[in-house]
Amino acid sequence: MKISHLGPPGTYTEAAARLYSDDAELITYPTVPEVIKSVIADNSDVAVCAFENSIAGTVSIETIDLLLTDGFPLVICGEIVLKIQHGLIAKVGTTIESIRTVYSHPSALAQCRTTLEKILPNATQVALLSTTAAVEAATTNDASAAIAGESAAIRYDATILLPDIGDEQQNATRFLVLSKQATQPSGDDKTTLVFTTSDAAESGSLVRVLQLFAERKINLSRIESRPTRQQLGNYVFSIDIHGHEKDDNVSQALAEISKHTSWVNVLGSYPRWK
Amino acid sequence: MKISHLGPPGTYTEAAARLYSDDAELITYPTVPEVIKSVIADNSDVAVCAFENSIAGTVSIETIDLLLTDGFPLVICGEIVLKIQHGLIAKVGTTIESIRTVYSHPSALAQCRTTLEKILPNATQVALLSTTAAVEAATTNDASAAIAGESAAIRYDATILLPDIGDEQQNATRFLVLSKQATQPSGDDKTTLVFTTSDAAESGSLVRVLQLFAERKINLSRIESRPTRQQLGNYVFSIDIHGHEKDDNVSQALAEISKHTSWVNVLGSYPRWK
Repeated sequence: MKISHLGPPGTYTEAAARLYSDDAELITYPTVPEVIKSVIADNSDVAVCAFENSIAGTVSIETIDLLLTDGFPLVICGEIVLKIQHGLIAKVGTTIESIRTVYSHPSALAQCRTTLEKILPNATQVALLSTTAAVEAATTNDASAAIAGESAAIRYDATILLPDIGDEQQNATRFLVLSKQATQPSGDDKTTLVFTTSDAAESGSLVRVLQLFAERKINLSRIESRPTRQQLGNYVFSIDIHGHEKDDNVSQALAEISKHTSWVNVLGSYPRWK
Repeated sequence: MKISHLGPPGTYTEAAARLYSDDAELITYPTVPEVIKSVIADNSDVAVCAFENSIAGTVSIETIDLLLTDGFPLVICGEIVLKIQHGLIAKVGTTIESIRTVYSHPSALAQCRTTLEKILPNATQVALLSTTAAVEAATTNDASAAIAGESAAIRYDATILLPDIGDEQQNATRFLVLSKQATQPSGDDKTTLVFTTSDAAESGSLVRVLQLFAERKINLSRIESRPTRQQLGNYVFSIDIHGHEKDDNVSQALAEISKHTSWVNVLGSYPRWK
């Protein structure tokens, strides 16, 4: 199997792709649209895209926007939940006491703020565009370290001084797997759909849609209103429900939903990550 | 009035603060927590924080997370909607034909991708950490340009070669204004609240909360489930409704809401931006 994902190599997205298939060939691209295009052009089988983080919320809006495009040829065929461990990484021989500069992506620096104040209160924090770029900087500069995942440390032959300096114990990122092939029911699935109601601002119209699921005991695991690209205040709703679109209760709810929506699109059903 | 906001100066956040008060003293800080702390410490009167963008969705998760902190002493007292215009900016004397490198923040590069392919198909795109840093780079390097707003061009005495190269006509960012003082009803207000339901995943519990607003004809203008910091799949809901918490129908709905939630917090009522 060939998996395309956002580069550079060594980021958390690579770790997620590896978790999905440990013997797949991984291909990196510099932007999310290029990752997706490679699957459309049959240059890879699936794309792995970051979707939401337990601390930062939605992380890849580009992925959602592409999924919303009319006639988009890919479906969500899987999900991956990766536990994020921010390690303190430096070149071999560096001691914690000698560190004067810490490099990382702005999100990783933010997620380690309290711990850094304790262990390296006087180090200068420098924001870079990826955790991989941070490890590259830390391994080429003296008296410095990077915050990044284990795979970046391995790639640069760097040493992991501390394995987990994140402020929150539970830090996980959810990735979506996109392909041309829909997934058959596994018995424990999720379905992601997007819709607009006839009157976007009228709260009763959203209640009527959610009621279709509630009365069939179909649980909700995510809801989000996204401003449409036309204007702020005009919304597309995106929800994740439990069950596969071929399950009886889900297919009944989906058969009714068009009565209460002006547009609806099922983005895919896929096995729940365990 | 003193307004604190995220720096560096010259970014879109500065333009929003200026729109809120054209004669306020603006104070920049390097992180969102420091912006907020300055209001708590009475070093400024209000904080202006980016909240959501019509193209990119939620832009500042940090702001929401701080608002969710128990005992957080600030309330939302206002909102600002700023139309985003991405200009092509270079040092005086530069011609479009001579540009070989385009600098900007990754989001701005993404929002101008199609236009850049047409006007500068061979230019190298370089991502930097802010649009202000991009203008600084463009004004110190030959044959280069930046994508940024007008205020950054003014700050660096640069020239605006093209005023709006964004791919989408409607690009707006919504900012929240935070202070220690609650705002009285203006007759056309919004209220932001956050809550958790007793069974987060059970779709019926969310329906029962939204029903409280629907049956009182209170419209919804945003809904979002945020993973709690504890784990993915365990959610806090955040909604914006029309009306002020002191309006009769809103105060009635809020009086009922605790029956259907395990935790609820009204973050503020404020005049709708017009």
